[in-house]
Amino acid sequence: MSAAGLGGPVALVGVGLMGGSLGLALRERAGVTDVRGIDPGDGALDEALRQGAITRACTDLDDAVRGAAVVVVCTPVGDIPHLVRRVLEVADGDAVVTDVGSAKSGVLVALTPDERERFCGGHPVAGDERSGMVGARADLFVDATWFLTPTAETRPDLLRRVHGMASSVGATPVAVDAQVHDRLMALVSHLPHVIASALVRQAASTAPQGRDALRSAGPSFRDLTRVAGANPRLWADILLSNRDAVLAETARHRNELADVESAISRDDRAWLEAFFAAAAEGRARLVDPGEGPGGEIVRITVEVPNRPGVLSEIATALGHAHINIEDLHLIPGRADEAHGTLSLDVAGADAARRAAALIEDRGFRVTPGP
Amino acid sequence: MSAAGLGGPVALVGVGLMGGSLGLALRERAGVTDVRGIDPGDGALDEALRQGAITRACTDLDDAVRGAAVVVVCTPVGDIPHLVRRVLEVADGDAVVTDVGSAKSGVLVALTPDERERFCGGHPVAGDERSGMVGARADLFVDATWFLTPTAETRPDLLRRVHGMASSVGATPVAVDAQVHDRLMALVSHLPHVIASALVRQAASTAPQGRDALRSAGPSFRDLTRVAGANPRLWADILLSNRDAVLAETARHRNELADVESAISRDDRAWLEAFFAAAAEGRARLVDPGEGPGGEIVRITVEVPNRPGVLSEIATALGHAHINIEDLHLIPGRADEAHGTLSLDVAGADAARRAAALIEDRGFRVTPGP
Repeated sequence: MSAAGLGGPVALVGVGLMGGSLGLALRERAGVTDVRGIDPGDGALDEALRQGAITRACTDLDDAVRGAAVVVVCTPVGDIPHLVRRVLEVADGDAVVTDVGSAKSGVLVALTPDERERFCGGHPVAGDERSGMVGARADLFVDATWFLTPTAETRPDLLRRVHGMASSVGATPVAVDAQVHDRLMALVSHLPHVIASALVRQAASTAPQGRDALRSAGPSFRDLTRVAGANPRLWADILLSNRDAVLAETARHRNELADVESAISRDDRAWLEAFFAAAAEGRARLVDPGEGPGGEIVRITVEVPNRPGVLSEIATALGHAHINIEDLHLIPGRADEAHGTLSLDVAGADAARRAAALIEDRGFRVTPGP
Repeated sequence: MSAAGLGGPVALVGVGLMGGSLGLALRERAGVTDVRGIDPGDGALDEALRQGAITRACTDLDDAVRGAAVVVVCTPVGDIPHLVRRVLEVADGDAVVTDVGSAKSGVLVALTPDERERFCGGHPVAGDERSGMVGARADLFVDATWFLTPTAETRPDLLRRVHGMASSVGATPVAVDAQVHDRLMALVSHLPHVIASALVRQAASTAPQGRDALRSAGPSFRDLTRVAGANPRLWADILLSNRDAVLAETARHRNELADVESAISRDDRAWLEAFFAAAAEGRARLVDPGEGPGGEIVRITVEVPNRPGVLSEIATALGHAHINIEDLHLIPGRADEAHGTLSLDVAGADAARRAAALIEDRGFRVTPGP
């Protein structure tokens, strides 16, 4: 999708680190010429205008949203559900509403099926130690995963538009189920933040015979606690917005630790060695996930039934299977036709074969060639 | 203390990463000319000779140890207690025996008071991702903390010799109580290694709807798990060698996590914000402990009773208070005198004042000037 393919202006509801960076990226990398911003923060809009992240500062939500092709809610995650509903009320009928929150199920629960037609949740996995517009930069999303959580109701053309926007700022859009997303983030992001902060607090309150534990820490402790205490308000908000998944993963982690304690207590060297060896294997997979360069772009053409939810289903299945969709095109059938055509570009012949097999497994017909 | 102050040859029992690096450092940085090594590993001694970490390869422990002024046991921590006892049996009466293990109470428990006279535990806080002689390097200890755990029985002249050896390879020797050491290391090193490995294992076994948690992780997860799975045998050994302290700190950490879970469950935003804010404070203290450059060396002279244990007591009190002893000198009183003289060099007038106050609090007389 070309940048012009966004089809019109973009409205940013919130111009902090994420909204501000998105504005800069859309203007500098994607050539979007009309970016409106609204933000209650002191001086945030002025700074966004000054840096060129937005082209118009709005004080009224309706004013910002009306006429926009894409509205991106970039506020703290706790505010997202009610803001998305408000935006959907005033946005154009052909506009898509998305967000950048770190938890994705909550907003979906707040929306009616009708509202979900024009909403596609998003979460760019990117950040900076500085928050607010001062930390914003146009390259924040380059090579970042940008999760999308379309539902069966999400309109395919609007999913395509959000997918294109994420690509246009250098990110890799990956569609996943919202609950899958929330569980993954609970485990690989929210739990680590909790652990890092808990560990620093524990060390900060420990000074046997006056010797300060924090001042006895080496480089590995520093690495492990780098994210400790990052933005207390933001993180309280994230934990509460992803409550069930965070509670589940935190409890699992406590159980893992209790297992280690049992092994130490019963002097079980073999168990402990196997524990560290399993971690070494996982770590190796983390550092080198075994993905080569994607290879040449291969186009897959799929005959799809003329009903909503099919693109969401296919995109999500590919996202779960770690197959990235580089670009996608929709040629809907006429109203009196039962089928339309979907074409998906993926990188490399192997990914294309796996994608085709997954799509056929779901009962759709893959046709050869572009 | 000058390098020559070691008073004779050094014997290294074990020439892996630590022993090998110590040999290289003693030869290249401290000018020690006679370094003997013994190691059961395939080719370890040849490699140590080739790199110049040792000047003589021994196959017999007695041969390596006899005539040495300092014997350093650099084996896996589980082997240290029985090896220290064996070395003490064959070492010269004026030799000091030390080690580099990550847990310090276990070996002390294994020794008789008589044996403890010529033993001073040590733990240089330094490492490398590679293990063995191949990872060894002469600068491994530069600017590292080198914990020493002298006891009331440790001979002052021998404590001074180990202190001087640590300084001579660029490390900062810090005397602490062995149990204090073990608790600190359980918290700032052993627990973090357990956590990192547990987290990777947890992620490695999680793939909701096929989406691999490990492949959904971002940079913060990578940082946090950098040490995961490091050397399974070594780490199993460390956990078992520091069993009580590790169990205590792991349980504390589980309680910290349970507190976070409670706050999430009862939707307690204020508690969570305070939790992250406390971590931010601790983190700030970790990154910048507020120690300026040490300043000019100031000498403190102390009149000390002619009995063992006094130097250990003073050095440990200063270590607990984060006051580093740059150098120390002993002028023992004659056998018929009740007192000798101890002089300590510390960096900066403020540290000197705090040190003098601590020493006087313990009932010793600090005399002015050098």
